[in-house]
Order: sequence, then structure tokens, then C-alpha cells
Amino acid sequence: MTLEELRNHIDVLDRQLVELLSERARAAETIGHLKAATALPVYEPVREKAIYANVRAANKGPLPDIELTHIYERIIDVMRALQRNELASERNAQAVALGQGTGAQTESDAPETETKQ
Amino acid sequence: MTLEELRNHIDVLDRQLVELLSERARAAETIGHLKAATALPVYEPVREKAIYANVRAANKGPLPDIELTHIYERIIDVMRALQRNELASERNAQAVALGQGTGAQTESDAPETETKQ
Repeated sequence: MTLEELRNHIDVLDRQLVELLSERARAAETIGHLKAATALPVYEPVREKAIYANVRAANKGPLPDIELTHIYERIIDVMRALQRNELASERNAQAVALGQGTGAQTESDAPETETKQ
Repeated sequence: MTLEELRNHIDVLDRQLVELLSERARAAETIGHLKAATALPVYEPVREKAIYANVRAANKGPLPDIELTHIYERIIDVMRALQRNELASERNAQAVALGQGTGAQTESDAPETETKQ
């Protein structure tokens, strides 16, 4: 394959990756809703360990496990932020329903509203 | 879907993601070989811009573009390290072929051999 062909191939793979990451994000959002309803925490170290174990078990190379883990740390970080936003919205909606306006949003200026550039 | 079912779904998606990332890494490795043969640099800002543009164009949510870009920054970082290792190996092989032993490896203690934990 030429450089051009390889790059076209990578572009196709990237679009498929975006699709999978979006589907993963939708599942994470739904889990965020469930967590809001059952008061489960966003950060669950045991589950995260299981995710890394699954990823390493599926890895047949050429990326070393450590590099794949680097990518996954970022993926999990982004998904966790998505769940936190989901939880913050749910709490806000609950507060509004209880007639407390947007109290839930302004109360937490720390982890839950963590913003990224 | 229950939490359990959603997590099983995520595990399946993660195995597919690992497969796509591995295929992308193989293509990046081949590009590394081509770059070694044609003396092209590993870091090509114009190409990287094109990758981000392709990713953002494919994004239909729910992840904001900025979060997807965060994930892609890590992916590109890892792939670039892979190409650098590929180039270092090629140069080393060339040096050995020229009877210079492992000179090429020890010569460059800067960007090309950048290691990660």
C-alpha cells in the first residue's frame, strides 16, 4: 500500500472508532442514569480494573499492553466526566421538580461540574 | 437494560475497539516503515489536523468534539511513539548492516527513543 492508501485506510478506521466510542458513551450515559437512580458512585475501582483486564486480554498487538492502557485511561476519564455531567443534570432536574430551582447545580462547584478545555 | 447487561455491552464494544486500535497501529507501523525509507518526519502537523477534522466530522455525539479530541490526542501520541520505535529499529538494522553495530540506537538519546511508563 502507498502512504496515501494507508492514510485513507486509517481515516476509515477512525470513523469506525468514533462510532464505537459514541456507542460506548451512550451506554455510559445510560449507566449514569441508573447510578443516579440507585445512588451508586461514578468512580468504581473494581469495575475499572475489570475493564482494563478485558482490554488487555483482547490485545493481540502490535500495541504493547501499556500503550493500550494509556489510551484506555483517557477513554475512561472522558466517560467518567460524561457520567458526572449526567448525574449533575439528573440532580438539577430533581431539585427543579422539588421547587429548589437550580440549587443542585450551583451547590457543587467541585468534582461533579469538572470542566475540560 | 440492567447495569449488568450494559456492562457486558461495554465489554463487547471494548474488544471491538481494541481490534480497531490494533489495526490502526499496524497501519501506523507500516507508515513508519515507509517514512524510514523516504526520510519523512514522524511528526506531520498537517496530517494530524486532517485526522482531527475527520474524527470531528464523523462525530454524531453524545461525546462533545472536545472530549473526543482528548481521546484522539492520546491515540495519536501512542501511534507516534510506535512509529518512532519503528524508525529507531530500522535505523538500527541499517547501522548493523553497515557494520556499525548498535550505534544508531545509542546515538539518539532524545525524541526518537522517548520511553513511556
